[in-house]
Amino acid sequence: MAENVDEHPQRKPLLVIHRIPSFSSLFHHRLAPTFSLIDPITSAGADRSAALAFLRLHGGSARALLCVGPSPLKKDTLDCLPSLECIVTSCVGVDHIDLSECHRRGISVANVGDAFSDDVADCAVGLLLDVLRKVSAADRFVRAKSWPEQPVFPLGSRIGGKRVGIVGLGSIGSLIAKRLTSFGCIIAYNSRQKKPSVSFPYYDNIHDLALNSDILILCCSLNDQTHHMINKDVLTALGKKGVVINVGRGSLIDEKELVRFLVEGKIGGAGLDVFENEPNVPKELFGLENVVLSPHQAVITPDSFKAAEDISVANLEAFFSNMPLVSPVIWE
Amino acid sequence: MAENVDEHPQRKPLLVIHRIPSFSSLFHHRLAPTFSLIDPITSAGADRSAALAFLRLHGGSARALLCVGPSPLKKDTLDCLPSLECIVTSCVGVDHIDLSECHRRGISVANVGDAFSDDVADCAVGLLLDVLRKVSAADRFVRAKSWPEQPVFPLGSRIGGKRVGIVGLGSIGSLIAKRLTSFGCIIAYNSRQKKPSVSFPYYDNIHDLALNSDILILCCSLNDQTHHMINKDVLTALGKKGVVINVGRGSLIDEKELVRFLVEGKIGGAGLDVFENEPNVPKELFGLENVVLSPHQAVITPDSFKAAEDISVANLEAFFSNMPLVSPVIWE
Repeated sequence: MAENVDEHPQRKPLLVIHRIPSFSSLFHHRLAPTFSLIDPITSAGADRSAALAFLRLHGGSARALLCVGPSPLKKDTLDCLPSLECIVTSCVGVDHIDLSECHRRGISVANVGDAFSDDVADCAVGLLLDVLRKVSAADRFVRAKSWPEQPVFPLGSRIGGKRVGIVGLGSIGSLIAKRLTSFGCIIAYNSRQKKPSVSFPYYDNIHDLALNSDILILCCSLNDQTHHMINKDVLTALGKKGVVINVGRGSLIDEKELVRFLVEGKIGGAGLDVFENEPNVPKELFGLENVVLSPHQAVITPDSFKAAEDISVANLEAFFSNMPLVSPVIWE
Repeated sequence: MAENVDEHPQRKPLLVIHRIPSFSSLFHHRLAPTFSLIDPITSAGADRSAALAFLRLHGGSARALLCVGPSPLKKDTLDCLPSLECIVTSCVGVDHIDLSECHRRGISVANVGDAFSDDVADCAVGLLLDVLRKVSAADRFVRAKSWPEQPVFPLGSRIGGKRVGIVGLGSIGSLIAKRLTSFGCIIAYNSRQKKPSVSFPYYDNIHDLALNSDILILCCSLNDQTHHMINKDVLTALGKKGVVINVGRGSLIDEKELVRFLVEGKIGGAGLDVFENEPNVPKELFGLENVVLSPHQAVITPDSFKAAEDISVANLEAFFSNMPLVSPVIWE
């Protein structure tokens, strides 16, 4: 496909594979027939300076890079790749990439668009059902053989009629709203701006949304404006029975404050797929019955992986064919 | 309300409270102003023969009985109450009541109608999301501090596109279908007969439904026809990746076969709120990662309790006013 734009038509175009060692080389079999792959992890091992040296040596003329998973992609790596024009990431969020450096150098970035949206929305609803109806706590209770000794399990809370505030009404947020409407929840939302085509009530600030919600669901992107948007004031506004669900990024929440509010019983519960310092989860949460903890697995289904692979390959094909990227990240 | 039909208008009508000791006397405060309550547990303690003797002594002229929770109500208890005309149960299912004896004696029975339907439907969807997306397993994984050592959590399975066979498309089944449609599931159903107003494909036998489903959700009533309807043949038809969700009654499933299929990996997973011998759960299930276990808590929210109380009181009021019961159980 790319022969007509490659400077050396007889050669396959170079593609840098950027990944942390624990992310697999899942895409390789699909990419290898089309691209000449430069994968420092495979070639130079897990040592970071060896990887950078390898990139400097072999990546000088590479025009494209595939970033596998949320592997941090910093300026020092970008500095090794002076010809880089395009970064394709297999994630939705791009907070792991030094975007201002990309912007400065005119490097375009593509994410996976909507490929994960259904699975992330399902994860959010699963966490909400679990916190309110105590599914994990019930499973723990039965496995601990407590049922025969303690015949009455603590009451859950009805889903229908709950006021759910969705923070970020993009493709994921919209799918969450669609699902929760079928449960009889009452939806409102906050986002950068009001969506003209959406009839749910809009709150232009998160504090007012929290004040008028029983549950907040975070599914917006992480950036300077949204970092620690869920702080002490917002948690106070959400109140003693309020529940926070986070399928966005850990740093949307001031995690220390959230832990304090949970431990002190100042909010009702939390369902968290993401954390500020993954894979480390605040140990104070391990003993709480009103939290559900999940290892950043909202997107982890084979269907999502396949969709991410498809859209990543489509973006690379578009780039090397001089066509517009399929799912470009728009600079704000 | 009932004065005009009571033989002794100056006295409150008698109402027998039938409950096992672990079920609370939750309703008493609401019933006591209207009825003269006969509660063997409160008066005669937990000993069964003392309770029966108490009933024989004090229940001779009682025309109504309130059965709290699924407390077994057998012929020997009914024999102590020769004037009984009406049983009101605070459950949906009535398999705990000797219906053929009620039928023989012309005792009418009322259940709680749709009071629990939303909560049971939510529980079913919660169990389904949990089994497919491994919510409880993920929570267990994080709490066990496994995440830092094992960065990649096992893959879940996408909800959208799954073929869900609903067994029993009454009010609960219909609410489950409504919810799962919003997730992109493909619904089919089995029930005693095809529902003319429903467009989902109908299967007149459970085996064919299983053969054409990825997931079976059981929400039908337990009776002679449905006892052990999920047997070896049906589980085989459901197949290696199939999932069973049960929010009906434990004995809808041949539990020994289900356990064997799960342990041998012959079906994909199960989400179980009910069991054959509650509160005893087969110990082979405690070590399995692909099952979610719940202590018959599908209806346990304060909203459901309030709704059940309201409808039970309404049925009693109707009976003592010579009006039709609000939610009578129809003999089949």
